[in-house]
Amino acid sequence: MAVNLKSVNHRYRYQPLPTTVNHRNRITSSFNEFTINEEFKNSIKSSRLAKSITQLMNTYIEKQQSLIKKDLFQSDNQNAVALSNSLLEKPVTSPKKNISKIWREIHGENDWEGVLDPLDENVRREILKYGEFSQASYDSFDFDSFSEYCGSCLFSKKKFFEKLGLEKHGYDVSRYIYAMSQYEIPRWLEKSYVAEEDTWSKDSNWMGFVCVSGDIESERIGRRDVVVVWRGTVLPSEWYEDMQRDLEPLGHGEATVERGFLSIYKSKRLSTRYNKTSASEQVMAEVKRLVRVYKEKGEEVSLTITGHSLGGALALLNAYEASMMFPSLPISVISFGAPRVGNIAFRDELHHKGVKALRVTIKQDLVPRMPGIVFNETLQKFDDLTGSLDWVYHHVGAELKLDVRASPFLKRGSNFFGIHLPETYLHLVDGYVSSTTGFRPDAKRDVALVNKYCDMLVNELRIPPCWYQLSNKGLVSNEFGRMVRPKRDPEDIPSPIEEENSDF
Amino acid sequence: MAVNLKSVNHRYRYQPLPTTVNHRNRITSSFNEFTINEEFKNSIKSSRLAKSITQLMNTYIEKQQSLIKKDLFQSDNQNAVALSNSLLEKPVTSPKKNISKIWREIHGENDWEGVLDPLDENVRREILKYGEFSQASYDSFDFDSFSEYCGSCLFSKKKFFEKLGLEKHGYDVSRYIYAMSQYEIPRWLEKSYVAEEDTWSKDSNWMGFVCVSGDIESERIGRRDVVVVWRGTVLPSEWYEDMQRDLEPLGHGEATVERGFLSIYKSKRLSTRYNKTSASEQVMAEVKRLVRVYKEKGEEVSLTITGHSLGGALALLNAYEASMMFPSLPISVISFGAPRVGNIAFRDELHHKGVKALRVTIKQDLVPRMPGIVFNETLQKFDDLTGSLDWVYHHVGAELKLDVRASPFLKRGSNFFGIHLPETYLHLVDGYVSSTTGFRPDAKRDVALVNKYCDMLVNELRIPPCWYQLSNKGLVSNEFGRMVRPKRDPEDIPSPIEEENSDF
Repeated sequence: MAVNLKSVNHRYRYQPLPTTVNHRNRITSSFNEFTINEEFKNSIKSSRLAKSITQLMNTYIEKQQSLIKKDLFQSDNQNAVALSNSLLEKPVTSPKKNISKIWREIHGENDWEGVLDPLDENVRREILKYGEFSQASYDSFDFDSFSEYCGSCLFSKKKFFEKLGLEKHGYDVSRYIYAMSQYEIPRWLEKSYVAEEDTWSKDSNWMGFVCVSGDIESERIGRRDVVVVWRGTVLPSEWYEDMQRDLEPLGHGEATVERGFLSIYKSKRLSTRYNKTSASEQVMAEVKRLVRVYKEKGEEVSLTITGHSLGGALALLNAYEASMMFPSLPISVISFGAPRVGNIAFRDELHHKGVKALRVTIKQDLVPRMPGIVFNETLQKFDDLTGSLDWVYHHVGAELKLDVRASPFLKRGSNFFGIHLPETYLHLVDGYVSSTTGFRPDAKRDVALVNKYCDMLVNELRIPPCWYQLSNKGLVSNEFGRMVRPKRDPEDIPSPIEEENSDF
Repeated sequence: MAVNLKSVNHRYRYQPLPTTVNHRNRITSSFNEFTINEEFKNSIKSSRLAKSITQLMNTYIEKQQSLIKKDLFQSDNQNAVALSNSLLEKPVTSPKKNISKIWREIHGENDWEGVLDPLDENVRREILKYGEFSQASYDSFDFDSFSEYCGSCLFSKKKFFEKLGLEKHGYDVSRYIYAMSQYEIPRWLEKSYVAEEDTWSKDSNWMGFVCVSGDIESERIGRRDVVVVWRGTVLPSEWYEDMQRDLEPLGHGEATVERGFLSIYKSKRLSTRYNKTSASEQVMAEVKRLVRVYKEKGEEVSLTITGHSLGGALALLNAYEASMMFPSLPISVISFGAPRVGNIAFRDELHHKGVKALRVTIKQDLVPRMPGIVFNETLQKFDDLTGSLDWVYHHVGAELKLDVRASPFLKRGSNFFGIHLPETYLHLVDGYVSSTTGFRPDAKRDVALVNKYCDMLVNELRIPPCWYQLSNKGLVSNEFGRMVRPKRDPEDIPSPIEEENSDF
């Protein structure tokens, strides 16, 4: 019988499958179409980010290839394991120092001259603090398309830092920021699948928060520190094309900035729940209020604006506006993996208004070079004629340039998504000593955090990739044993009224 | 300046991106190569299954296309929502009935004549019980490649049913089954990334368990029910090619079965920790022991063998062997979405030995038709000549044929991965009334379970896809605030010695 079948089946045998490698590709790409896309539609945190960044990478695929080759050098992973094990029994933070006498330098008064290379330990601590605020804007964002609160913050202002384990920094959230856009910007706005009338807002996303240092932290850092944190999200590559076409004027001078950024920063519509006023108006009103409150108390006040990726771009627009409203206020921008925002005039005006900007970048992260890659090529041409190229490499303000290859814990290769994530930035800042030395042996941040949304840690560390997740995606068993989505605590339900009267 | 740039950039403009749809494909496929593959390597439960099933689908891509078209009919999702809401406050099980007088019919004595269409409520309950045992073999399997216990069972025998919420069935696990294969079978064996000397076993996987009904359940079902549960896993499509080429003889007659199945069932090697004896020997020894124990007590004993997908195939091999060792023992096989195993002679011998087999299948699930699709085409030719095709459609034993379209809760279309999963089977069995009527309105199982590892539920139900997951992938914060993988409880660490002396 078997014999019989053999001969007969031969006539009906389908094409043999290709070799393992091609095969694997076929599996995954087809898996993709059949399964993953479904999951994408329902947006797990990391995949939403990944989609955009990868699309962005698509646009620069040739450049990637060359980078991949450059990056193949491998670290000694066994050392990483030993190092990591030696850290397991150590606290994740180092003792805080009083910087009340030197805060102005740390805040960039001298454009961080001489404190970045080698990196001053107090500067490192402050960069990490603001970086953790930026990271918090990802960890607290509701990406669940099946939630009626998709696109809002998961926690109320009062619980925010507690829920994210960031009380240690001694700040209090005073107001949430909401943004919309006049344009249909691809994959920017997170939208709920729930029927529109049942969602908290169909037009706006939670876009960040304003917080202020408490008395104890203010004592340590020598002033009342008002901080604006802009939520980051990776940008679709169309934007970088726009960026060269659609520069819009800002202010009264020559300054022009990318239309998409400006739209998110400035858009409002009376018919919406959260953007009857623009993100810009919400933030400026709150900063104005806080500055007045503390100035009246005779306190010294500073403004620090921070953000990752898109958040870093919005931070610069915010700083530009703030510098006009508060000419005498010390204003600093600490951005992580931020793209360029505007033209030379924009950079110059920021400079002249005394805005201090520190751009933290990773050499292998392409986003800070968007649209710089094109910009540069363009101006390289100019340069051959004019010979003035400085600004291209200086961007706006000072730069702390990190290198993935400095860390023994990180995989080599071309994980452009992972390289861009804020936890990767924080890990490298924590380990940065100087441009010429390796990873800081007494770096204390938990290395495992790097893999929250990606797969950047060497396998030998045995930290699973993309581990940051809720048990059963937040479903809980009700009294009848049925898995249900729990209702939000009343105080955690976003409400425009709440935002109106910032009771602080 | 902007103008200037425009003109200049034009020379450096990269290719415009394609239209949204192609675009999306480009995103995901490229996302795939850069990011997902990494995750695959680290095997999340669902992706491992999905890779194989999708690969399998690859092979039958044309057939899929035609199916997709057929399946586009949509159910009224709002009804599903109303129905689901009405269930939220209801228990997930119905009261148990005493079947001690009718257990033989339920166990297939009359080949389930007249109890499947319409489906007898007691038969449904028993099918669901064995189906939940099969599902348990997925939920308890350690898929974590970063765990030194990858490929083992997460829980000890004593805790097994408790951990999985299946104590309600009143069975006790008496022995675990381990299997290996003589051949390098693509993507069958789950292997740990941890250095080999540190892993519990590099050769074997936990392949299922033997359990037996406790006194109370035995009272209700009228006999001592010894159950063998074979863990399922979706098979790479190469197997289905093999299946037609590499049929190996079994027993002394004409019976031949697929080489890959037989290898997993029969392989052993003295140098291994868990397969000094084969899965076959482990199971037969334990069944023999249990049958003797209870026969000596003068009890009536039955043997029920169950499994999903590959597990269903192994169940048939197991039943074939058991029927030779225990000629007088009532033996039944309840399989879910199982592929074909052998030739006609194999089927006939099982039949003549009195093995009762109930094959639960889903019309849209392609796996039960593997390699049937080719088989059938082949024999269709025969048929045109011989006119005897019955067995092709009868497979081995009786069939309970389900239809995805019967459930108002399930998405239409072509999620071949989701359609094959055991929870989808259990959902459809729970709702099955007859081949001519719709979904049972008083079906009580929690609908949300369907989305454990897939995306089959209509979005309106707002159950996230693939929700079955541990908080932070099992990482916990140690006393220093570092995320670490907790050690297993000593009694949950697999040990061959444990398995040797089944103290039951």
